[in-house]
Amino acid sequence: MHERLLADFAAGKKAALARAISVVENHRAGFEALLGMAHARTGRAQRIGLTGPPGAGKSTLTAGLCRAYRAEGLTVGIIAVDPTSPFTGGALLGDRIRMEDVALDPGVYIRSLATRGSLGGLSSATREICDVLDAFGVDRILIETVGVGQTELDIARTADSSVVVLVPESGDSIQTLKAGLMEIADIFIVNKSDRPGADRLRNEIEVMLGMRSGATLRDVPAHHGVDLSRNVARQAREAASKDGDAWIPPVLRTVASKDEGVAGLVEALDRHFRYLEASGTLRDRRRTRLRERVVEVVEDKARRRLWNDAGTRQWLEERLPELEAGHATPFTVADDLLARSADLLTRTS
Amino acid sequence: MHERLLADFAAGKKAALARAISVVENHRAGFEALLGMAHARTGRAQRIGLTGPPGAGKSTLTAGLCRAYRAEGLTVGIIAVDPTSPFTGGALLGDRIRMEDVALDPGVYIRSLATRGSLGGLSSATREICDVLDAFGVDRILIETVGVGQTELDIARTADSSVVVLVPESGDSIQTLKAGLMEIADIFIVNKSDRPGADRLRNEIEVMLGMRSGATLRDVPAHHGVDLSRNVARQAREAASKDGDAWIPPVLRTVASKDEGVAGLVEALDRHFRYLEASGTLRDRRRTRLRERVVEVVEDKARRRLWNDAGTRQWLEERLPELEAGHATPFTVADDLLARSADLLTRTS
Repeated sequence: MHERLLADFAAGKKAALARAISVVENHRAGFEALLGMAHARTGRAQRIGLTGPPGAGKSTLTAGLCRAYRAEGLTVGIIAVDPTSPFTGGALLGDRIRMEDVALDPGVYIRSLATRGSLGGLSSATREICDVLDAFGVDRILIETVGVGQTELDIARTADSSVVVLVPESGDSIQTLKAGLMEIADIFIVNKSDRPGADRLRNEIEVMLGMRSGATLRDVPAHHGVDLSRNVARQAREAASKDGDAWIPPVLRTVASKDEGVAGLVEALDRHFRYLEASGTLRDRRRTRLRERVVEVVEDKARRRLWNDAGTRQWLEERLPELEAGHATPFTVADDLLARSADLLTRTS
Repeated sequence: MHERLLADFAAGKKAALARAISVVENHRAGFEALLGMAHARTGRAQRIGLTGPPGAGKSTLTAGLCRAYRAEGLTVGIIAVDPTSPFTGGALLGDRIRMEDVALDPGVYIRSLATRGSLGGLSSATREICDVLDAFGVDRILIETVGVGQTELDIARTADSSVVVLVPESGDSIQTLKAGLMEIADIFIVNKSDRPGADRLRNEIEVMLGMRSGATLRDVPAHHGVDLSRNVARQAREAASKDGDAWIPPVLRTVASKDEGVAGLVEALDRHFRYLEASGTLRDRRRTRLRERVVEVVEDKARRRLWNDAGTRQWLEERLPELEAGHATPFTVADDLLARSADLLTRTS
């Protein structure tokens, strides 16, 4: 049956794609074999992230971008990620209904992702589904996130190109947005730009861009443990000075609901992708993504090997009374637990 | 110097508390010894979480609650957690200024926490700072979170009692809030209840409470790996049926800005704490917290031992070309990496 899935997937059957994504998303039996197979076939798709505050019109813009790519004969995958769910699960559903015409197109594959068991899991799940879509042969992958929190930043880092979508109303809060969104943006969109304040917002973004170097912070390794996160600022400066023709993020105006400016975004994304390829940044970003991916898989495997083991869980339960009495600390118990787990942690399953 | 810090801390010097929290928050040298010392002294403080959507008036309510406890002669620690930062770091600062009279009180200790390196880190950091405050002898710890996302849920789980703060305007979205906030709430507050819609919101919450069993989902183990997260719903049902006199979350009205209803909240929190003690739920929750704490420390230690090791990082760099070429997958490389790391992972540092 699993052989059959792989064969159907390789033959480009859309039902096999849906099933493969389900297997991967739920980490069902065979998901490692599936992702392993997918890994060797990735690298063709262009991965585009769309991030911004709620109400900025990201879904409408995503649908517009999707239609533009379809008109060029390209196939499109859309991953809509809502890290705030289960708390605000309603918003995304509305967005999906608005995209209905796109959803019925056989050249489009849409998947929604909400919070999985663990928090770190969302960007990991996004990466995995991107790999499956990429391996299936999808030309463009649009990753839409609902909000502007830390999880969205992590997800944006999984894309080749990051589009930050703002609206004239964002102007008031742009100072507070600066630290996060400004640093990941490859392209800025001032959406709903037929409203008052669009020019002012555009100016503010451009002033802010003048204040920073050409390289974005995302071109340095992610924070993993103490050492990997050290000297991030220094590395960013070095990256900028090495790279004479640094990318200056354009600030584009759109009215996504009227399909205005979408062609300009498509053009800017193409230009950005050519820049990524020519400058070597694409290779660097993909290498960073692979490094982070291995780190994720290592940590996930270690976690599963430890906590899926009944003996480990039983051992921990038996230590709880000591802990409650204050005769042991979480640190001494953790040391003991790791000390007894060498076989478990290092045994390839 | 470190001996001196421990001595000053034990002597109840407030400067030592501030320094101890800094050491713990930044995981500086000696933080394990400090938390180990703190661990044996915890268990006295009552930990109260305040969660709800932005704009619900949580900070004003937190300040009011703090004043009420101070009037009773109790000392108070306040931890304000903003998981959305660095994106919206502005909000919390404003809230802190509004609490200024409270901040100047020597019987009050306030600490703000924003996103740390890794995501899971925030609830872990909150727990650690709670332990330090508890060990220092603080009577009440108020944990205020800014939003209603998954991180806030994790943080709310670290408290003994969880207060969910809503406003009449929340009524429209209460269906979508249900899945998350409803399940962690021990007490509901309808704040700004002098506005229209307060009665309607209260009714809606009470209808919703009628639809669920008495036990809250938080009384079952957290999701760690596949096995621990299984059968959560079943365990919640069992917990409910075991516990005949289940706690029914009261729905209270407040106007925090006028200090109305705060006394009622203090009374409800006292009543809830007595219920927790009498029913054995306090013991269960604290045991769950200890179990989760060990899991956190184990995972954090494993991560640091792996990624702080220059040899491991070098080994991973050398495997990247194979990965890029598709000759290896993240899964095979992860297996190899763990297989070579037995000594590293199990060696007590």
